[in-house]
Amino acid sequence: MAYHKPEAKTVQDLKDMAHKLRIHSINATEASKSGHPTSCSSLAEIMSVLFFQQMRLNMKHPRDPSSDRLVLSKGHAGPILYAAWAEAGLFPVEELKNLRKIDSDLEGHPTPRLNFIDVGTGSLGQGVAMGAGMAYVGKNYDKADYRTYVIVGDGESAEGSIWESLHFASHYELDNLCVIFDVNRLGQSEPTSLQHRMDVYRERLEAFGFNALVVDGHDVEELCKAFHCASVTKNKPTAIIAKTLKGKDFPDIEDMDNWHGKALGAKAACVIKSLQSQIVNPNVKLTPKKMCKGSLAPEVDITNIKLCAPPNYKLGDKVPTRLAYGTALAKVAADNDRVIALDGDTKNSTYSDRLRNAYPERYIECFIAEQNLVGVAIGATCRRRTVAFVSTFATFFTRAFDQIRMGAISQTNVNFVGSHCGCSIGEDGPSQMGLEDIAMFRSIPGSTVFYPSDAVSTERAVELAANTKGICFIRTSRPETCVIYNNDDTFAIGRGRVVRQKPSDEVLLIGAGITLDECISAAEQLEKECITARVLDPFTVKPLDVELIVEQGKQCGGRVVVVEDHYQQGGLGEAVLSALAEHRNFVVKHLYVPTVPRSGPPAVLVDMYGISARHIVAAVNAIIKK
Amino acid sequence: MAYHKPEAKTVQDLKDMAHKLRIHSINATEASKSGHPTSCSSLAEIMSVLFFQQMRLNMKHPRDPSSDRLVLSKGHAGPILYAAWAEAGLFPVEELKNLRKIDSDLEGHPTPRLNFIDVGTGSLGQGVAMGAGMAYVGKNYDKADYRTYVIVGDGESAEGSIWESLHFASHYELDNLCVIFDVNRLGQSEPTSLQHRMDVYRERLEAFGFNALVVDGHDVEELCKAFHCASVTKNKPTAIIAKTLKGKDFPDIEDMDNWHGKALGAKAACVIKSLQSQIVNPNVKLTPKKMCKGSLAPEVDITNIKLCAPPNYKLGDKVPTRLAYGTALAKVAADNDRVIALDGDTKNSTYSDRLRNAYPERYIECFIAEQNLVGVAIGATCRRRTVAFVSTFATFFTRAFDQIRMGAISQTNVNFVGSHCGCSIGEDGPSQMGLEDIAMFRSIPGSTVFYPSDAVSTERAVELAANTKGICFIRTSRPETCVIYNNDDTFAIGRGRVVRQKPSDEVLLIGAGITLDECISAAEQLEKECITARVLDPFTVKPLDVELIVEQGKQCGGRVVVVEDHYQQGGLGEAVLSALAEHRNFVVKHLYVPTVPRSGPPAVLVDMYGISARHIVAAVNAIIKK
Repeated sequence: MAYHKPEAKTVQDLKDMAHKLRIHSINATEASKSGHPTSCSSLAEIMSVLFFQQMRLNMKHPRDPSSDRLVLSKGHAGPILYAAWAEAGLFPVEELKNLRKIDSDLEGHPTPRLNFIDVGTGSLGQGVAMGAGMAYVGKNYDKADYRTYVIVGDGESAEGSIWESLHFASHYELDNLCVIFDVNRLGQSEPTSLQHRMDVYRERLEAFGFNALVVDGHDVEELCKAFHCASVTKNKPTAIIAKTLKGKDFPDIEDMDNWHGKALGAKAACVIKSLQSQIVNPNVKLTPKKMCKGSLAPEVDITNIKLCAPPNYKLGDKVPTRLAYGTALAKVAADNDRVIALDGDTKNSTYSDRLRNAYPERYIECFIAEQNLVGVAIGATCRRRTVAFVSTFATFFTRAFDQIRMGAISQTNVNFVGSHCGCSIGEDGPSQMGLEDIAMFRSIPGSTVFYPSDAVSTERAVELAANTKGICFIRTSRPETCVIYNNDDTFAIGRGRVVRQKPSDEVLLIGAGITLDECISAAEQLEKECITARVLDPFTVKPLDVELIVEQGKQCGGRVVVVEDHYQQGGLGEAVLSALAEHRNFVVKHLYVPTVPRSGPPAVLVDMYGISARHIVAAVNAIIKK
Repeated sequence: MAYHKPEAKTVQDLKDMAHKLRIHSINATEASKSGHPTSCSSLAEIMSVLFFQQMRLNMKHPRDPSSDRLVLSKGHAGPILYAAWAEAGLFPVEELKNLRKIDSDLEGHPTPRLNFIDVGTGSLGQGVAMGAGMAYVGKNYDKADYRTYVIVGDGESAEGSIWESLHFASHYELDNLCVIFDVNRLGQSEPTSLQHRMDVYRERLEAFGFNALVVDGHDVEELCKAFHCASVTKNKPTAIIAKTLKGKDFPDIEDMDNWHGKALGAKAACVIKSLQSQIVNPNVKLTPKKMCKGSLAPEVDITNIKLCAPPNYKLGDKVPTRLAYGTALAKVAADNDRVIALDGDTKNSTYSDRLRNAYPERYIECFIAEQNLVGVAIGATCRRRTVAFVSTFATFFTRAFDQIRMGAISQTNVNFVGSHCGCSIGEDGPSQMGLEDIAMFRSIPGSTVFYPSDAVSTERAVELAANTKGICFIRTSRPETCVIYNNDDTFAIGRGRVVRQKPSDEVLLIGAGITLDECISAAEQLEKECITARVLDPFTVKPLDVELIVEQGKQCGGRVVVVEDHYQQGGLGEAVLSALAEHRNFVVKHLYVPTVPRSGPPAVLVDMYGISARHIVAAVNAIIKK
């Protein structure tokens, strides 16, 4: 593919279009009286060239699986992205003035409420990971010609997550990925630390394995050439490092401090007039390129995924739920070849290696970089290309809380599986113990939180998660727990199970994972003291089976003991309390890990931190009088 | 300072010591039947040279403010760090065999329960940030000669947080910082992505502004020379990139896969024998260098910090609590010159710029890199050198949840201040809204969570936080709220205040921030309907004033309505439910943001998501019959 310079007319049209996009950005932010017109302006030529010279789009179906992807990592420049889609004909330009209005999906930062947005952005530094996930799928699974573009602000390039993702992209030779750095020199509150040191950006990007091209980001011709170079560079992703000016071509504002995140107000009219004067053809009309005729993305069906074989355990077997996860993961992968797994160098602990052993090409090793791990998974699942299971130690997902939070805004369906929950992991100590993971995943809007207690229910949790919209989290345990369900028992989201009961029950015990085992053994001990206790397995902590808990709790005199290998806040205990909030006449005793644990044998820790059978018995004895 | 090669005897002694440290690591992990002896072995010569040739320590007081700092970022190599301190004479070598035992502080990963550890490590990729914080303080505030060393594993160098911190260190020219990369080629589950590509490490570190030295990490002489070079290099931090072998000198184990995180078991005896055979002087005894006679760290007093002037508002004034934060921050900084502020390029939104304007040298701009921001603050407060306030948008602290979690394990006293909480920020949209921040900070063991509702109580929250142990979080709001307290009102942690009451009250309303204003207006409206409602301001969500809530709730017929600009899970509502868990006869209605919000005007959003006065009135009407 030799490079042909664009015609002079094309160049002028692209320049005119850039100014039009600037004007739209100003008008939109004037209408909303807020927003980031100067952050849009630095991007104007880049957007113009991307949309009207470079990207291949299907305007009838913006999320066509075969069309190019664009992630605006610097989401605050949303208005110019919206303007480009409007100029490309997706919706009327007049709608741009509804920016940030309550009844418009043209929000302050882009979200997939818009049919042309794949992922929500606005929390900085996340776009490259998501773009890399898309590119990985394009290159390795779809084996299609579509390309992925990510626009990164220079301010956000200080985020380490960006560098995790750049490394990932070059390690996996994602030559279908092009990352554009909009180096406009100014951050929100002061200049960026690197300002216009283009040499430093280039050195860093080259060292991170990129084909790194420094260009004048306001020169349409240079941009066209750089994008061409990106498209013909093999085995390496390309970074286009664009030297730009914030507020470019806004008189008295360009390249000046204190203009971040502000509508231009009184200056708007004069700036627009100046921009208009630079436009040669005010009626310029351009259309994006059509999609390649080359390799299209295949049709895929990711619905109705099943375990290829039912669970196969014996009642009373001792199996860690993390191992049952690995087994089930390989089974759903056998059923559907779009099931993939990603892990951060813990695959032999989480047992995601079970999928890798069976289908090596469907396992993506993300090494020790959890933010990128999560972002890649979100990208990989976009446009319903894959069903992704992401695993690491439960507590290490705290590293990617922001990415997971943005995942909900992105309407992602990624499944997270966190092993090594609680103090019951033992000797490795508190840094490795997941004790806040339920709190974190419960706080994610629309999430489903599975906390299976045995191998059978774990396998079913995996099967359910594969088919469930929104973010799913499955919490698995390191120690063995007893198989308590039959292989043909059925499970559903939001449906708990009573695992031990008598009509005489005076208290309801609720536990999950290792604490369900503790509840059962407490109930056995209590029976010797002539107290009978009912035991309930919630299966999902969110949604919780409120009806079952209320009904069973009432039958037990309103006395409930909840026990969990988690801190007090936001876990199973508070979920139960929320379920009972509007019911009078309940009394709940909550046993939880009360402080930072230490290293020691699992059983010793479980007892030391007050969540063993012995403590449950004591709690029951205390509550029975209430 | 010219470099003098160490004597041949010194070199041999250091080699012998390295082998002794290896043997200790094996014996300790054999005794605990778990741990990471191979990850220790790659570090043996580095540890030997650091402790017995390089670092200046005070063995009587390991946390002497003037002594050198060492952060073992790859915390799983704890046993060899413990061994080095034992060989240096801090405690008997025999104690090493208590590794990971329940009654020993020699935990699986280092924590400050040990008097020679400054920060907990074990969640990877966090050590450089903390080391950079220590070095920043050493260079800029203490102006002392102590140096800071950080040991990073090659696996964890994939963490983006590392690269945030490397950039920070070079940007601020921290030439008193030396980062050692232990490039042992092997991760937990497979080789690292860069294996032994030392050239790539060097290029990346040079591009990130480091004096980058590649050495044979098992060559004592090369290490001595590199450390010397580090100590004389000005205006640049140094990276010593050590090529090493995992399990070095362990026959049949060295440089082999599948030996991560395992005691050697049956192979231990044979490995130890082989190591012993390489030791020339089995009785080698070395001592660390004493502290410099040069510039010592000054004595500082960070106790009893006060606002230099009391709050100065008028009842009924409208002031955003984020602005009151900035005002108070400058006031505590005026009182004590060790109060510092750190921010991630949001200082003009959080109002931390108020400190910067008054005391520019005490403000540390961390740019858009929240993980490093938090880590630097944790490092900066070590050894009680500073009182740090870290601010950004509340939701962006999710980016550093893992660092904050590890902060609790590190026993840090850092104060976090999150602005822009809730949907009430308005048009910027959900990516910028803190709706899970209370859940996150409540889950941190030992934390204090302030949620002040007006300017007066915000100023007092800042004053209290400055003097409170453990992690503090202050949640501030973007919109204006009414000043409801007198300037001389007093506030205490765990003490709420009833802000409106009558003997006839039939329901207790609990709100904070903007929802306290909504509660007050709901109470006014309800009064017209002849329902009187009591209104309670919790001031701190954690600890919550349980006694007050129970007492006031009972007086209101056990009817409680909690309203918060936060998701359902883990916030104020569930905190109240936890407080009431063991009390029968309460009924709680909880109003919260139920889903991902959208862009729109603040008041419209507050109403749309069900937390406005109108919804509180409706909730009261529903609950009043219960």
